[in-house]
Amino acid sequence: MVEPDNKPIRLGMVGGGQGAFIGGVHRIAARIDGQFTLVAGALSSDPERARTSAEELGIAEDRSYASFAEMAEVEGALADGIEAVSIVTPNHLHFPAAKAFLEAGIHVICDKPVTSNLADAKTLAEIAERSGKLFVLTHNYTGYPQIRQARQMVADGLLGDIRVVQAEYPQDWLTEKVEDSGAKGAVWRTDPAQSGVGGSTGDIGTHAFNLARFVTGLELDALAADLDAFVDGRAVDDNANVMLRFKAQNGVAAKGMLWASQVAPGNENGLRLRVYGTKGGIEWFQADPNYLWYTPFGEPKRLLTRNGAGALPASTRVSRIPAGHPEGYLEGFATIYAEAARAIKAARGGRQGPAEVVFPTIADGVEGVAFVEACVRSSQNDGAWTKLDL
Amino acid sequence: MVEPDNKPIRLGMVGGGQGAFIGGVHRIAARIDGQFTLVAGALSSDPERARTSAEELGIAEDRSYASFAEMAEVEGALADGIEAVSIVTPNHLHFPAAKAFLEAGIHVICDKPVTSNLADAKTLAEIAERSGKLFVLTHNYTGYPQIRQARQMVADGLLGDIRVVQAEYPQDWLTEKVEDSGAKGAVWRTDPAQSGVGGSTGDIGTHAFNLARFVTGLELDALAADLDAFVDGRAVDDNANVMLRFKAQNGVAAKGMLWASQVAPGNENGLRLRVYGTKGGIEWFQADPNYLWYTPFGEPKRLLTRNGAGALPASTRVSRIPAGHPEGYLEGFATIYAEAARAIKAARGGRQGPAEVVFPTIADGVEGVAFVEACVRSSQNDGAWTKLDL
Amino acid sequence: MVEPDNKPIRLGMVGGGQGAFIGGVHRIAARIDGQFTLVAGALSSDPERARTSAEELGIAEDRSYASFAEMAEVEGALADGIEAVSIVTPNHLHFPAAKAFLEAGIHVICDKPVTSNLADAKTLAEIAERSGKLFVLTHNYTGYPQIRQARQMVADGLLGDIRVVQAEYPQDWLTEKVEDSGAKGAVWRTDPAQSGVGGSTGDIGTHAFNLARFVTGLELDALAADLDAFVDGRAVDDNANVMLRFKAQNGVAAKGMLWASQVAPGNENGLRLRVYGTKGGIEWFQADPNYLWYTPFGEPKRLLTRNGAGALPASTRVSRIPAGHPEGYLEGFATIYAEAARAIKAARGGRQGPAEVVFPTIADGVEGVAFVEACVRSSQNDGAWTKLDL
Amino acid sequence: MVEPDNKPIRLGMVGGGQGAFIGGVHRIAARIDGQFTLVAGALSSDPERARTSAEELGIAEDRSYASFAEMAEVEGALADGIEAVSIVTPNHLHFPAAKAFLEAGIHVICDKPVTSNLADAKTLAEIAERSGKLFVLTHNYTGYPQIRQARQMVADGLLGDIRVVQAEYPQDWLTEKVEDSGAKGAVWRTDPAQSGVGGSTGDIGTHAFNLARFVTGLELDALAADLDAFVDGRAVDDNANVMLRFKAQNGVAAKGMLWASQVAPGNENGLRLRVYGTKGGIEWFQADPNYLWYTPFGEPKRLLTRNGAGALPASTRVSRIPAGHPEGYLEGFATIYAEAARAIKAARGGRQGPAEVVFPTIADGVEGVAFVEACVRSSQNDGAWTKLDL
Repeated sequence: MVEPDNKPIRLGMVGGGQGAFIGGVHRIAARIDGQFTLVAGALSSDPERARTSAEELGIAEDRSYASFAEMAEVEGALADGIEAVSIVTPNHLHFPAAKAFLEAGIHVICDKPVTSNLADAKTLAEIAERSGKLFVLTHNYTGYPQIRQARQMVADGLLGDIRVVQAEYPQDWLTEKVEDSGAKGAVWRTDPAQSGVGGSTGDIGTHAFNLARFVTGLELDALAADLDAFVDGRAVDDNANVMLRFKAQNGVAAKGMLWASQVAPGNENGLRLRVYGTKGGIEWFQADPNYLWYTPFGEPKRLLTRNGAGALPASTRVSRIPAGHPEGYLEGFATIYAEAARAIKAARGGRQGPAEVVFPTIADGVEGVAFVEACVRSSQNDGAWTKLDL
Repeated sequence: MVEPDNKPIRLGMVGGGQGAFIGGVHRIAARIDGQFTLVAGALSSDPERARTSAEELGIAEDRSYASFAEMAEVEGALADGIEAVSIVTPNHLHFPAAKAFLEAGIHVICDKPVTSNLADAKTLAEIAERSGKLFVLTHNYTGYPQIRQARQMVADGLLGDIRVVQAEYPQDWLTEKVEDSGAKGAVWRTDPAQSGVGGSTGDIGTHAFNLARFVTGLELDALAADLDAFVDGRAVDDNANVMLRFKAQNGVAAKGMLWASQVAPGNENGLRLRVYGTKGGIEWFQADPNYLWYTPFGEPKRLLTRNGAGALPASTRVSRIPAGHPEGYLEGFATIYAEAARAIKAARGGRQGPAEVVFPTIADGVEGVAFVEACVRSSQNDGAWTKLDL
Repeated sequence: MVEPDNKPIRLGMVGGGQGAFIGGVHRIAARIDGQFTLVAGALSSDPERARTSAEELGIAEDRSYASFAEMAEVEGALADGIEAVSIVTPNHLHFPAAKAFLEAGIHVICDKPVTSNLADAKTLAEIAERSGKLFVLTHNYTGYPQIRQARQMVADGLLGDIRVVQAEYPQDWLTEKVEDSGAKGAVWRTDPAQSGVGGSTGDIGTHAFNLARFVTGLELDALAADLDAFVDGRAVDDNANVMLRFKAQNGVAAKGMLWASQVAPGNENGLRLRVYGTKGGIEWFQADPNYLWYTPFGEPKRLLTRNGAGALPASTRVSRIPAGHPEGYLEGFATIYAEAARAIKAARGGRQGPAEVVFPTIADGVEGVAFVEACVRSSQNDGAWTKLDL
Repeated sequence: MVEPDNKPIRLGMVGGGQGAFIGGVHRIAARIDGQFTLVAGALSSDPERARTSAEELGIAEDRSYASFAEMAEVEGALADGIEAVSIVTPNHLHFPAAKAFLEAGIHVICDKPVTSNLADAKTLAEIAERSGKLFVLTHNYTGYPQIRQARQMVADGLLGDIRVVQAEYPQDWLTEKVEDSGAKGAVWRTDPAQSGVGGSTGDIGTHAFNLARFVTGLELDALAADLDAFVDGRAVDDNANVMLRFKAQNGVAAKGMLWASQVAPGNENGLRLRVYGTKGGIEWFQADPNYLWYTPFGEPKRLLTRNGAGALPASTRVSRIPAGHPEGYLEGFATIYAEAARAIKAARGGRQGPAEVVFPTIADGVEGVAFVEACVRSSQNDGAWTKLDL
């Protein structure tokens, strides 16, 4: 059933029942630009919660499923079944769920990290490839207009050759052992069986790493990591110090540092990226995402605002409102959905999405999990320089 | 036809065809929380633009109307006609459109200023009262969580008795005479026949005034205004200096200043509110809306973040995501829609909305237009102290 | 006795005994660039305090005087008597002290406001004129390099014709009635007999007004003021809302607002100046004085740092250290002394100081007191537009 | 010759002739609090420049020396010879100059790094010890009041056990090969024969390291460094990525990162320190030194201002003016001199300085050079964890 472009994409969701943070985020992101309609869900492993969550969201009773497996099977066979599914479960369920939907011929939009281990990630990449379906990974920060601006500036050579990359993502919510009191989101994130071997590295370090990669286009050569679980009895890292060596580009091998922490009081979601090259530098901070600081070497620092003076097409294309009216986290997230929508609608007609459309894919996902595992390996090896196992 | 709460509200829109800024904003705001479905529209006075805009938005052909009058008549008579309409036209059309829908038994969500003159505003208030329908005015900045926080803090007495209010809303987009080249939004905003007698006072001064009123709860006693049209040949003010005297509360008569400008280079949408009382002060800036600065007198300044430590219920109730992940202009706007939705859904069953639900109404609209006209009158009278004609 | 330029200027001081804030500031300011030596003083009206203060400062016993009158007489007659005197007493003593030293042939460096009433100020201007001695008024904020930068930018036409001026100086230290408990500096500042008719207007409003004048070069046409003494029983204003009308320059009559407050919790010394013209805007904030924000209309905002890229000669000339190493309040104050020193040294040889040397003079002092009295008069007259009585 | 406390200390200077940056800084620092008089100098190795510089500074002709050796010998033998000397030459001259003055019985105030190699530093420490004279190292950032505040907060346990330390000092002035065009300060700083083996590590990395040590009190266990000379042909590092492991304190072994760079466009002197513990976090930035951000875990972030609410004695003691009036780099530097002065004056009478007096000493100097050499060694060894050779 090929739909016209103004017909929203039929979307399902796995996970994201009542009380879950990231499920709600995905739903808002899917709504903002009016490109999706949520029509099916396997919203919780708890049947009662799945049912009431679905009802609350206006999902028809017969399209609220007890399991993702059932949902994939049934929806895949419906004439007007879902065209895409959002997977917003804890990490360890990403793999089986994504596999089921891809094999049922349904596009996948999946939260990060893509899987809880690298072997799964690589297998999933093959499955995705084989399926011919789209795989969209919600490294949502790549949706911020000023990040798109930064990326285009680097690509256009405004910074010259990149020498230095500083990425960090500090938080403070795991400063104390909140997982013991069952705090929302803390339990599975600190359980290796659900989150994978990485704690802060997997949950937020991957975001910082992906963002650095997205903006600079540089490939990592090797990393040296020193991980800690500062909170007694915590099974995964809650602080990660990492040095980065990038592969040479145009003869210059950039160096970088990456810091991820969940035990840094005063930091809520302090994702920050700074990139310096031979001709200039840029600085961006997630809490104030509409600003991009740009210094052409030897000139005054400039404050580039979203949709303001000096905004490049890569940025204005994904901006919704005038400069000075802040867009936020949800809009950046929604841009991933909007980009996905353009690709999915093109796929309805068997076409590729437009060249300008950009979103993180399974390849970014594999690299992210490889990053996490390399961090852990390096740290276990006393900070030895370690390559990603790609 | 009474709908269950999880059934979105059927919404129509007047104005907001392709290329219009504020129409797109209203549509996103209506979508974010999934409480509305846009099913009808009179999107443009240009029939072709109305048609293609409707198609683009997935509005059925037979519910795309050539005029708001037709739309009000037809939809008002349909069993499943629209329950509410968003009016997003230039100011001078607010009155006839709102009148038509109220009289057709349809709730109205209307952009500000509510009308282009005070007489119309007062008449509309009577019509709204008579109709028994809801009238929601999108003074959207009142939807920001940190503004709700500020309001609750004042109400809770954390600032003590208010003495000083500083409100400002500088922009720079009318620094040059862009209306002559037909710049989007500039033409009607600088044409008194469409905008009313106020320029910057009406377009942004009303926002600043409303915000000060919303947060402090103080009533204006009188104002003294000095307005200018700095750009040669501009027919309405583009810069407004205003002094404010509030009515005494608890024996203290607060004083304030309000500055609105469209000719202040470097200001995009610089709405700022500062309130100082006997016990403390707060400061808020629209470009960084997730921050509220709070100083209890004699203690260090505190940065209150949306949904962060110290967030009060009035703020967390309208916050969607964790602290450190910025919400923006669209979410604040969406909160007005979400609040409206709760009231409209309650009205489906003949009930009042919950007590906690807050949104600007026709009364705020009347006061806003009275503010604009008082500014103009005072300025014409060499800045004489002037009362609102309420 | 004509000294070579590397010989420091012999300086005396009136007021500034132990515990006084501004006396210490003047002494540091005089020391920073090594151009003055403090050799005499009438540091306190309390003889014991005068004596111990002098001893602490290494002033010879025979040059510690019991009164400024004695000091002026004796030093004026000494071959190596003081060349200049710093007057740092409460306002009402500025006049007799300055008069005494000018008439004794000694240059005067005087704190602001120049006198406690306008009649005295005008008389003093005549005395200064007659004396042929230099009169330097320490409107110290004019010494900040980025204020010099702003001034040159305006003079160079970078902002085009000025339309809008926003000046403010909020503090919070008089939020409560601290004068009753004898708080340092609060007693005389709130006593009209010592401070003059203005409270916040005289103490800080004059600074804001002078700064606006210094940077823009615009002359005031009239003002409309609304003053309050919010604290019960306070005899002078502690909050001042003022609208400003400047005389036309190049056909454009700029408008402005000025806010001074001592009852705004969370503001320490929040002097801020914003100036907007047809071609650009600038913004400066005293708490972060090394930054000047500059937006050429239609381009991104730029952060001009002291001595950084884009610094103009007027700024670099008075800057001591590289960009990124902050200079502060004392260095700005010291620049007034350094400028005075160049003029005084030139006067040693009967010459004028170099053309580039700039400092506030008795004329600024007269204007400042006229500003205070006009504010009071306007406010008493219900905010009527009032001209300075110059 | 024992002087009373109000008699300034007789000071000499080695280096710091016309055009040198840091010499002028030391002189201002020595003047600000009136505790020193500059009476002798060996200001330049160029005799003409030495002479004119001395004249300009009012140094008597017979106390302007051709070499530090001569100066040490002559002044050491004078009854009213200098009591202390400031050494402000390139690094490699610190050692012989300091040795000469210490052995001549003169206190030494020396710029950092203390010497250009570790062997010299250790030898100098012995010489200093033997001499019984004071050795003050101008790690000037330790003089900032908010750094003193931070240090006391850590010592008082307000942050709990320290887990994470992030220190950085980015600059951009060596982004291009300015040393080839003889740029002031760049030539010797990039010449290992004058600067030592470290470039950015020695010039600014030592400051960042010292600051982290000063505030936290933590001792370094080992570091892993990745150094680069990004500019072609540069003989010393211009970018340094370093991971830090501190020795356990109270059972918690903190981890840290340190970044020093001279090739990061947009950074002037971006020294920043962030420290996070089990109970709270603090953040400080040199460009805005009057602010210290403090977040008690689970509470709103607070802005602690110099001399403002919440200021502790360790901070107020070294603060000169009220909150809101910024002190800067020179005042922080002057505090090192003021602390030195108290120790020197105590030493006049054979006493120890008061317990509260704090300044960096030769021990900090040795550690700083050890830090630089450990960075170089680690980097040469592919980033292996390396201990300081103390």
